[in-house]
Amino acid sequence: MSAVFASLGMSLDGFVAGPNAHPGNPLGDGGLRIHAWVEEVETWRERQSMTGGTDGTRGNQDDTIVRDTFERAGAYIMGRHMFAEGEIGWPDPPPFRAPVFVLTHTPREPWVRQGGTTFHFVTEGPAAALELAREAAGTKDVQVSGGADTVRQFLDAGLLDELQLHLAPVVLGAGTRLFDGVSPELHLHPVGAVSSAKVTHLTYGIASLRSEPDTRTTTHETGAAA
Amino acid sequence: MSAVFASLGMSLDGFVAGPNAHPGNPLGDGGLRIHAWVEEVETWRERQSMTGGTDGTRGNQDDTIVRDTFERAGAYIMGRHMFAEGEIGWPDPPPFRAPVFVLTHTPREPWVRQGGTTFHFVTEGPAAALELAREAAGTKDVQVSGGADTVRQFLDAGLLDELQLHLAPVVLGAGTRLFDGVSPELHLHPVGAVSSAKVTHLTYGIASLRSEPDTRTTTHETGAAA
Repeated sequence: MSAVFASLGMSLDGFVAGPNAHPGNPLGDGGLRIHAWVEEVETWRERQSMTGGTDGTRGNQDDTIVRDTFERAGAYIMGRHMFAEGEIGWPDPPPFRAPVFVLTHTPREPWVRQGGTTFHFVTEGPAAALELAREAAGTKDVQVSGGADTVRQFLDAGLLDELQLHLAPVVLGAGTRLFDGVSPELHLHPVGAVSSAKVTHLTYGIASLRSEPDTRTTTHETGAAA
Repeated sequence: MSAVFASLGMSLDGFVAGPNAHPGNPLGDGGLRIHAWVEEVETWRERQSMTGGTDGTRGNQDDTIVRDTFERAGAYIMGRHMFAEGEIGWPDPPPFRAPVFVLTHTPREPWVRQGGTTFHFVTEGPAAALELAREAAGTKDVQVSGGADTVRQFLDAGLLDELQLHLAPVVLGAGTRLFDGVSPELHLHPVGAVSSAKVTHLTYGIASLRSEPDTRTTTHETGAAA
């Protein structure tokens, strides 16, 4: 069965967004510092209908990781706040190029965009959205895009198989912390770490959904992305 | 000149100790979860006059990293709270086997212990302690052992060249956060990441003390420690 994963940028002090975040300021004050690395990544820029940036085919591992993450996702789930922010900010075609299931209390007809992205609005909660996303993803994986509240909902409900954290080497000091309110009972296990000169990519399995920790061995390059 | 580094265990939500930490409860409530990985490491156990544990010579990278960290340190600096905790808890010989410079307001004669550890009490502040530690360390490095307040003091004063974080895959929810009160102006850059099945070892250079980010490439093994 396809995996359910989340992939978030986080500061060293645990913030995934700065203070005063709202649809006009989606990352919050200073939040761009958490995501500065991805702004330079060619795959991300291309998905945002921007040109330039680094290129994974030339060995930039940040780009490779972003591309692999986009390619493994066959469907997305997001909260209504993230959608409200994206509805303003995303280009058409939006970056997803796949069905997106939006958790909301307000029924709405599907919103078809260019490039394969259709937003579906789900009022029956996370489990129902996941069932629809799994069906839409087929053999690919389901990405819980965010925001932090939505990722916490899936963590608390035991619906997440994998958590990717892109740890930015910055201290934010204020904002929204991913793990605030998450149960100390949450059992993660590290399955990979890749460090570039700009960010450290951490991958965790959710132990509660596995019989034992994943102990596969992989090789990583460190530091050569700049 | 020898490097000045700190090496701390931290939870995913940024805590280096649990709540209610005091000399009789040095890690705070639940704080042992941050350091569970090191309790199994043979080099650490041997330094604590305990037997057993994993063995770096058999390929356990957690053990190798702990041994390398002990071996590079020619002198240590710590705050008076950490010393007060250790004075109760450390065996004789203590784990350091090198001169330890304790920041304090109370003058005290050097305390000579077995195995090469002598505690020197410095009342003239961090810079003075660092000068004495550098001289004692010779060609080796100086480790700022902690606690968190002391590491923050050295970070804020720009006296730290390198920060090692041993990121435990746990959520603590309360306690002492390393980066609380640290200036958002702090510029770190990732220089390495190694993930075992139990912990992720992150190494950061302090950019403010370097002309440019270190972009050396190293290879890491991930996940095979269990």
